[in-house]
Amino acid sequence: MEFPSKLIEEAVNQVSKLPGIGKKTALRLVLHLVKEKQENTFALTEALSNLRANIRYCNKCHNISDAEICSICLSHRRDQTLVCVVEDTKDVMAIENTAQYNGQYHVLGGVISPINGVGPSELKIESLVKRITDPANEVKEVILALSPTMEGDTTSFYIHKKIKELPVKISVISRGVPIGGDLEYADEITLGRSISGRTLFS
Amino acid sequence: MEFPSKLIEEAVNQVSKLPGIGKKTALRLVLHLVKEKQENTFALTEALSNLRANIRYCNKCHNISDAEICSICLSHRRDQTLVCVVEDTKDVMAIENTAQYNGQYHVLGGVISPINGVGPSELKIESLVKRITDPANEVKEVILALSPTMEGDTTSFYIHKKIKELPVKISVISRGVPIGGDLEYADEITLGRSISGRTLFS
Ligand SMILES: [Zn+2]
Ligand SMILES: [Zn+2]
Repeated sequence: MEFPSKLIEEAVNQVSKLPGIGKKTALRLVLHLVKEKQENTFALTEALSNLRANIRYCNKCHNISDAEICSICLSHRRDQTLVCVVEDTKDVMAIENTAQYNGQYHVLGGVISPINGVGPSELKIESLVKRITDPANEVKEVILALSPTMEGDTTSFYIHKKIKELPVKISVISRGVPIGGDLEYADEITLGRSISGRTLFS
Repeated sequence: MEFPSKLIEEAVNQVSKLPGIGKKTALRLVLHLVKEKQENTFALTEALSNLRANIRYCNKCHNISDAEICSICLSHRRDQTLVCVVEDTKDVMAIENTAQYNGQYHVLGGVISPINGVGPSELKIESLVKRITDPANEVKEVILALSPTMEGDTTSFYIHKKIKELPVKISVISRGVPIGGDLEYADEITLGRSISGRTLFS
């Protein structure tokens, strides 16, 4: 692609680094910003810099949070004995959206992926073990709610191995979600059913 | 959508203002930035702010340019007598990419669109008339290369009405590009042929 300006070229290069955004889409987005009012671009860049500079995570469940402990972890209306293990924030949002779940979460921050260089130590697995082990937390059941992909399955097996001797029930969401698909793209009904229809991890 | 953090919410709101980016895609992009190194986000926001603050346009053809007069307008190797009228920078890039055209451009900055509140006075049409009228420019032919949509056609008719009494040939790119489609999505061969096979505007 030949650009008429270095400014355009640099902006397109940066935007096309985002996942799923090709050069042509990046160019369309960049030219859109050029046509719009300058303050719109500044509102966008402000929001992104601010997000990246000030992002915080809940000390308990590791979900993104504005406070030290997130509102879900703090809520007395939610079942403290249930902990649903997910890959990331998108999955918490997807499950919350089903209105089928009233327990806690534990956000791993990824899944085990040798190809992407993500090992168990990069994920919040030790923290999950500690959370279950601490009697003050009263965890009775751990629900494994990872995507039904090879990496998700690998991570579930790894976690199961780590916690199977602990005095908690270990369940896994039912495979209503299409195998090989990402959890976040499941529709609400399918995802809600797969939580209520969870089975013991075997 | 319920967000776990105001920072995420504001970032998703801003990103989903971009054309063709829904809330779900915006969330995916935003969470990607959160996982990546902070300097990657800063490189992105820097490139966008810098672009928006410092963008300049060629004084002659109105294409985006880093200099007062762009390299195409300055080039002695290009035919000064031919002026190809296009909607925006994406179209200049698409036509340059075909390697079938060696003349000049005139970038309107949009098309006439009553729905979007764009009238002829918002476009560089008067500037085109002046450019043709000035004998120093030696313009002999004006090629109308707007998208074959209703708005593109309206704009072509309007320009034709404005310049038909001037001593220039007026041509229009041939309709090899699918009717109703946007020029920028045409493949190089179709677009190249539609330029070399242009016909007199009637
Ligand atoms: Zn929490
Ligand atoms: Zn120029």
